[in-house]
Amino acid sequence: MMRFYFNLSPNPMKVALALAEMGLDYEAVPVDTRTGAQFAPDFLAVNPNGKVPALVDGDATIFDSNAILLHLAEKTGRFGPGDGAKARGDFLSWLMFVATGIGPFSGQAVHFKHFAPEKVPYAHERYQFEADRHYGILDARLAASRYVAGDTYTVVDMAVWGWARMVPFILGDEAWTRYPNLKRLQDEISARPAAAAVEALRTQHGPAFKADMDAAARAVMFKHLKAA
Amino acid sequence: MMRFYFNLSPNPMKVALALAEMGLDYEAVPVDTRTGAQFAPDFLAVNPNGKVPALVDGDATIFDSNAILLHLAEKTGRFGPGDGAKARGDFLSWLMFVATGIGPFSGQAVHFKHFAPEKVPYAHERYQFEADRHYGILDARLAASRYVAGDTYTVVDMAVWGWARMVPFILGDEAWTRYPNLKRLQDEISARPAAAAVEALRTQHGPAFKADMDAAARAVMFKHLKAA
Repeated sequence: MMRFYFNLSPNPMKVALALAEMGLDYEAVPVDTRTGAQFAPDFLAVNPNGKVPALVDGDATIFDSNAILLHLAEKTGRFGPGDGAKARGDFLSWLMFVATGIGPFSGQAVHFKHFAPEKVPYAHERYQFEADRHYGILDARLAASRYVAGDTYTVVDMAVWGWARMVPFILGDEAWTRYPNLKRLQDEISARPAAAAVEALRTQHGPAFKADMDAAARAVMFKHLKAA
Repeated sequence: MMRFYFNLSPNPMKVALALAEMGLDYEAVPVDTRTGAQFAPDFLAVNPNGKVPALVDGDATIFDSNAILLHLAEKTGRFGPGDGAKARGDFLSWLMFVATGIGPFSGQAVHFKHFAPEKVPYAHERYQFEADRHYGILDARLAASRYVAGDTYTVVDMAVWGWARMVPFILGDEAWTRYPNLKRLQDEISARPAAAAVEALRTQHGPAFKADMDAAARAVMFKHLKAA
């Protein structure tokens, strides 16, 4: 059976959604990144980057949520691109827009909005602007396209869903008013049975994770603080 | 003929290397991001994210360098993963490690080391630490593996090469001493005829690009400065 290493943050939750959409059985292995479990040697042998999610599927080990989504779409033949070069180009482009843009800039925006131990106005403004710019591009895409990659629901939408559920946390409580098309997609996916399965996973495993982002959690999650 | 929209920065240069390795003909279209050419409507129709590289290949439009590398490996059947699920998992995982880690964190490190108009010590330390951590993981991988994805030269190595040539600029002149295995790969690729073709492209098109990162260039490249 596949082993899915996860916590409750956006990148693992994208994968949890895909696993549920595809009806795949797996063993869920919590990795509590606030206690440093991601740096245990056994886990670093799975993902030398010390991050979740990671997936062990038979002989294959896949780390990075976007790599896992591609793997699962290929494995099952489901929720991948439509036929033809244009559809495949759109699929890969938008998946990478989420992977290299939405994810990293959202992550930095959250760090400076919520978790950095000091106020850093320049960095806060930079990442608020960039995260907002990225969500605005997604919203414009979804004004013209039923789903992110095109006419059908794909793993790209699942990748978006993982992050978009955090939009108010990333950009403020009013942020959804700026992205009505993205909100449409988010609500549609959140109403699916697979999203309910993700919520059940969160409820079941929530107590396994440290809740406080305290000084000890910051020390293992933001190792640069020791160097600073 | 394919149209390759580029400037001389790391992400387009990865793709230029892949195009040269694969012997593909293309029209090279310079996009001068220091003058705001990336926000021209004609270019935003190619890549709504306003970034290079982008590739138009017949009916397909692909943006993001990593999406383009996947597209080209699939199109040509060359420089992709070896056979089997393990090899494909390693290939996707390491490609995404470069796409979502090496690229974004190197980019932020460069911003705060060289281009931000004020000193931001916290952010500088954060991204120097994270960029160094990522190159260290690559170096450890290359201590145990001939190439990044495994035993053969793939587009993952090309993705690494685009960024690794900037290592002294990102992390300081002495940084190569910390990554001897990565340096071995970098030197090997730089000695290939395809790397010479990239240098010829740089030399040919260098004058088409604005050289100075002056206030006007910062205003179009770092739009958050207006909001700050």
